[in-house]
Amino acid sequence: MNELMTPAHTLSELLLLGNARTVSDWIESLTPSETARAISRLSETERTLLFNLLSPEDAAEIIEEISDTQAADLVEEMTSERAAAIIKEMPSDHQADLLSEMDEETRQAILSKMHRREAKEARILMDYKKDCAGGLMVGEFLAFKTNATIQNVLDDLQENRGEYVNYSVQYFYVVDRDRKLVGVVRINDLLFPARKTLLKDIMLSNPLSVSDQATLRDLHEFFEQHHFFGVPVVDDKQRLVGVVHPAAIEEAVSKQKTRAFLKVSGIIGGEEFRTMPLLSRSGRRLSWLSLNIVLNIMAASVIAMYQDTLAAVIALAVFLPMVSDMSGCSGNQAVAVSMRELALGLVRPGELLWVLFKELKVGIINGLVLGLLLSFVAIIWKGNLWLGLVVGGALAANTLVSVMLGGMLPLILKRLKLDPALVSSPLLTTVTDMCGFFFVLSFATILMPKLGGI
Amino acid sequence: MNELMTPAHTLSELLLLGNARTVSDWIESLTPSETARAISRLSETERTLLFNLLSPEDAAEIIEEISDTQAADLVEEMTSERAAAIIKEMPSDHQADLLSEMDEETRQAILSKMHRREAKEARILMDYKKDCAGGLMVGEFLAFKTNATIQNVLDDLQENRGEYVNYSVQYFYVVDRDRKLVGVVRINDLLFPARKTLLKDIMLSNPLSVSDQATLRDLHEFFEQHHFFGVPVVDDKQRLVGVVHPAAIEEAVSKQKTRAFLKVSGIIGGEEFRTMPLLSRSGRRLSWLSLNIVLNIMAASVIAMYQDTLAAVIALAVFLPMVSDMSGCSGNQAVAVSMRELALGLVRPGELLWVLFKELKVGIINGLVLGLLLSFVAIIWKGNLWLGLVVGGALAANTLVSVMLGGMLPLILKRLKLDPALVSSPLLTTVTDMCGFFFVLSFATILMPKLGGI
Repeated sequence: MNELMTPAHTLSELLLLGNARTVSDWIESLTPSETARAISRLSETERTLLFNLLSPEDAAEIIEEISDTQAADLVEEMTSERAAAIIKEMPSDHQADLLSEMDEETRQAILSKMHRREAKEARILMDYKKDCAGGLMVGEFLAFKTNATIQNVLDDLQENRGEYVNYSVQYFYVVDRDRKLVGVVRINDLLFPARKTLLKDIMLSNPLSVSDQATLRDLHEFFEQHHFFGVPVVDDKQRLVGVVHPAAIEEAVSKQKTRAFLKVSGIIGGEEFRTMPLLSRSGRRLSWLSLNIVLNIMAASVIAMYQDTLAAVIALAVFLPMVSDMSGCSGNQAVAVSMRELALGLVRPGELLWVLFKELKVGIINGLVLGLLLSFVAIIWKGNLWLGLVVGGALAANTLVSVMLGGMLPLILKRLKLDPALVSSPLLTTVTDMCGFFFVLSFATILMPKLGGI
Repeated sequence: MNELMTPAHTLSELLLLGNARTVSDWIESLTPSETARAISRLSETERTLLFNLLSPEDAAEIIEEISDTQAADLVEEMTSERAAAIIKEMPSDHQADLLSEMDEETRQAILSKMHRREAKEARILMDYKKDCAGGLMVGEFLAFKTNATIQNVLDDLQENRGEYVNYSVQYFYVVDRDRKLVGVVRINDLLFPARKTLLKDIMLSNPLSVSDQATLRDLHEFFEQHHFFGVPVVDDKQRLVGVVHPAAIEEAVSKQKTRAFLKVSGIIGGEEFRTMPLLSRSGRRLSWLSLNIVLNIMAASVIAMYQDTLAAVIALAVFLPMVSDMSGCSGNQAVAVSMRELALGLVRPGELLWVLFKELKVGIINGLVLGLLLSFVAIIWKGNLWLGLVVGGALAANTLVSVMLGGMLPLILKRLKLDPALVSSPLLTTVTDMCGFFFVLSFATILMPKLGGI
């Protein structure tokens, strides 16, 4: 495929021909990311054309392949009847994810066009927080009463073959009259016993289950400990409400990491795609940058306080950004290690002293090495040993401050219920800038008589 | 649990009692992250004590729960006999992952102590790159010949119940005499037909499969398109060699994101845990930082070139780090968006102009807004309109350069087969520092007569 004939171009041309079959067959042949890319590059008119052309089933399949943010934007452009028809074709967890990405008004309009029962189910799933068992479970599972026989199960399987094909049937859950979970039967348990055997006689009683409020972390640990294909989710009355699959958990963990990465890089409030409107992209980035300008002013004010020293030894200006940048990098390394260890549960937010002690040692070694390197540079450049002492000493001291702070910050922020991904880096940079400028300029002020000749 | 009585303390005390049962029961009661944390905090002597006490089965279970890097360090401390006995108890993909984390000598010593057949299988898996289908598949699957009957399958299931309990049996694969994959039978296909039915009569022929060389990206797309419990992996002769499960793919994607995040933060060469030896932690961080010092010198040399201007208008020194830091942040936002779009396949490495155009517009708007803000700050502080023009203009120009470069860098690096996570940020910072210093100081040099009074 050449650079000029992208999937989006081909799709535009196919749309003009207006044959639903050709379009959906062609989209079927693309990988999910090609689909997402092609659709994101269409104009709004072309997208409307496309989704009016496709059957709700085909449309639902495409929408499931692209990211929630993109999908929500897409569905918001449709009429609510059309959107409801498409959403009906999706599994319940995807329905809830997609609907919860939309604004309140559109969501309610779509829900009002869905069947009452489906809308109710979607509302229940949406009421759960996204990253708890209730938000991650699917509503598609097979549950039977305790007095059902193997034959009943087989009949049901045979009868609903078409529908169940999309389910992830691994386990059959057994519930009592109040829909409380009492047992589980694996599909291969059905292979051997006589067909009139009651499920309650072959089921595993008191099966493991998770609460609908279980966190993503709990669920991740659960599947690390137990290699199950799914775990039943129960509400506070022990009633079976859904099933969580391990792939859904891994996917949610992976998405969480992406969000953390974007936040660390200053993209807040969710994802940004270049196909979004210019002003919204620009505005979202600015909201972050304008906070940064305030933090920068605070840091730079340290330089303003020492203008006389700087005017006397102008060579220091060359080293100011070096000292602050280098220590910022050292501190960010410590932040990354702490965030990683927190995520893995290898360190707890309360263990500040342990982290401090571990980073102190790294800080001393790395501070000395980097400080020596920088003082070497300064001495070679200006031939003044004292200048080397000032900038090398400042870098050593600031590296130590920075790694200790960087190591502890994520733990402190976690304890304060703040988001380490969002807050660690700008806070660290501001403090290491301030300290870096302060160390260089105050050391220089003290040693001013020795630096006079530069 | 109070701060002082951590799981590691409890574990140390239990070890002194020396009762294998008590120790393994207690570990069983911990979550995987508590286990990992407790073990990482033991001394080397205590760890040796622990793993000599536990049965190989229990030891294998613990080792599977902790991260590969940690696990490899742990196993390297053992005798190779003991290590081989424990590794034998693990599923084949975990064996290969763990062995490939070790140094060559230890690995060969352990392999030589394993059964010849097992060692051979582990070697085959290790020969695959970690992030391709061959490296992500498991060797545990059930394959039958075309002329097998349903009864044969059921007999086999009944007979090997104990062993298969740990397999993830969803599908039965059907192979011909050369072990070429010819069909697949789902477990519920066995429920209904007569028991003497041949597999070849109920199997789905020409099932979907992936090559053992398929990349993580291919596999991720495969499972986004097909909601399967697993996909068979075939070699270049179409022989069935393993099965890949979707959770393994999601986990690998998630791990890849972690590595990218650590690299962006300057932790290279894999993970760092604070329980690793001090000098190795310190050295790995330094290897990154000492590259950074060179880049910093390059950037700072721009300031050195303009020392006269700076000496004449010392207030500029306050704005130098502000301009470079702010533009660095803007550029990093663009880097993050590009890395995200590349990962999702929404942009291709060749589409430089498209990205440039999109970022140009954001750069102009954000550059103007931030430039105005900063010039405002300068004018209020020093009451000199021209100083405002210099620093505001420099920030606007540098923001534009930075977002355009930041947006394109990941695409360019990807094209050059360099790792965007590793290289984007330091390269961007160096360039935006250099340009930032240059814009401020060269604008100031031009407008020097107007700035004289500050």
